[in-house]
Amino acid sequence: MGDTRERILEASAELFRRQGYVGTGMNQIVAEAQAALGSIYHFFPGGKQQLGAEAIRRSGELYDALIDTVFDAAPDVVAGVGDFFRGAAEHLEVTGFADACPIATVALEVASTDETLRRATADVFERWTANAAARFRRAGMPPARAQRVATLLLALLEGSFVLCRAARSTEALRVAEHEAVALVITALRLAADDAPLPTGSPR
Amino acid sequence: MGDTRERILEASAELFRRQGYVGTGMNQIVAEAQAALGSIYHFFPGGKQQLGAEAIRRSGELYDALIDTVFDAAPDVVAGVGDFFRGAAEHLEVTGFADACPIATVALEVASTDETLRRATADVFERWTANAAARFRRAGMPPARAQRVATLLLALLEGSFVLCRAARSTEALRVAEHEAVALVITALRLAADDAPLPTGSPR
Repeated sequence: MGDTRERILEASAELFRRQGYVGTGMNQIVAEAQAALGSIYHFFPGGKQQLGAEAIRRSGELYDALIDTVFDAAPDVVAGVGDFFRGAAEHLEVTGFADACPIATVALEVASTDETLRRATADVFERWTANAAARFRRAGMPPARAQRVATLLLALLEGSFVLCRAARSTEALRVAEHEAVALVITALRLAADDAPLPTGSPR
Repeated sequence: MGDTRERILEASAELFRRQGYVGTGMNQIVAEAQAALGSIYHFFPGGKQQLGAEAIRRSGELYDALIDTVFDAAPDVVAGVGDFFRGAAEHLEVTGFADACPIATVALEVASTDETLRRATADVFERWTANAAARFRRAGMPPARAQRVATLLLALLEGSFVLCRAARSTEALRVAEHEAVALVITALRLAADDAPLPTGSPR
């Protein structure tokens, strides 16, 4: 039973990512998840909106875990940022330019029309930004700068996804990768300059 | 008659921008444009897809003209970039976070599902990038760098729009504005360093 619920959520998340929330019908979700229409309403009595909100939060968690995986495997945050953008470009190419951000399409569709889903997307973007910002702080950036850099990188990534999917080319992500890495290096260098001099050292 | 066609295109473009292509029905377009359903099929015999493609290209032209207006009014490209991001943030706030990029929602929805519309969005992004890149070249950047900077700024703008609409806050655009200006200043400074030394000057 829990299995069916999982399959429905997974199928929904995948369809929302590729074609958006509005254009995804319950019948299509049922077919993809190999579930009965009744089971959707059993597990998600709130219907498509509840399914939408849960799929958004679930995608948010999975992508957050991906941030952890990529950064934890990298020797430092600079390498982690480069790996993340490079990995995104490779994944986009492998999936025929379908799998970019799991929630951006829905976010743009619902921002002005569905407050429940808008909040779900906002929470997810905030969670990702907080994850990256915490990593930048631990690498030495002051909190406000770490937050700004995380916001910039997410904006760069999301915007590059829009351009890359439209153009069916990873060019924008390649350019963004280079810039994102440079941006983090500069922000860390500034952080080193900010650090108080060791006691007793000449001023 | 030409008037009705215009009203239909304008209403379509506005609805696509706010809620996407998929969720916009012909009846809603008819109501917004104060036109008869028959007149849509008279002016756009290809139906919703033709209307979609023309609305995308039309929005592309209008936004391209906005780039011209903002940059032509600014004393230099650096100020122009700052003005453009600031103007986007103000417009977003004034419209209750509805009016961001006119084609990004549609671009994400159709990228994997409608090749005609995907191409229309790709052409528009290319046109905007080319406009900005030409301005950066005239300001002294070598062509390849001008192109990269234009791509980065558009990615930053598009990604910030996603985050700002989701959060109902202009924070991401404010951060992006600062970074975009810094990026252009750095790229212009590098361009000055690249310039050949005047003949006869010491090496």
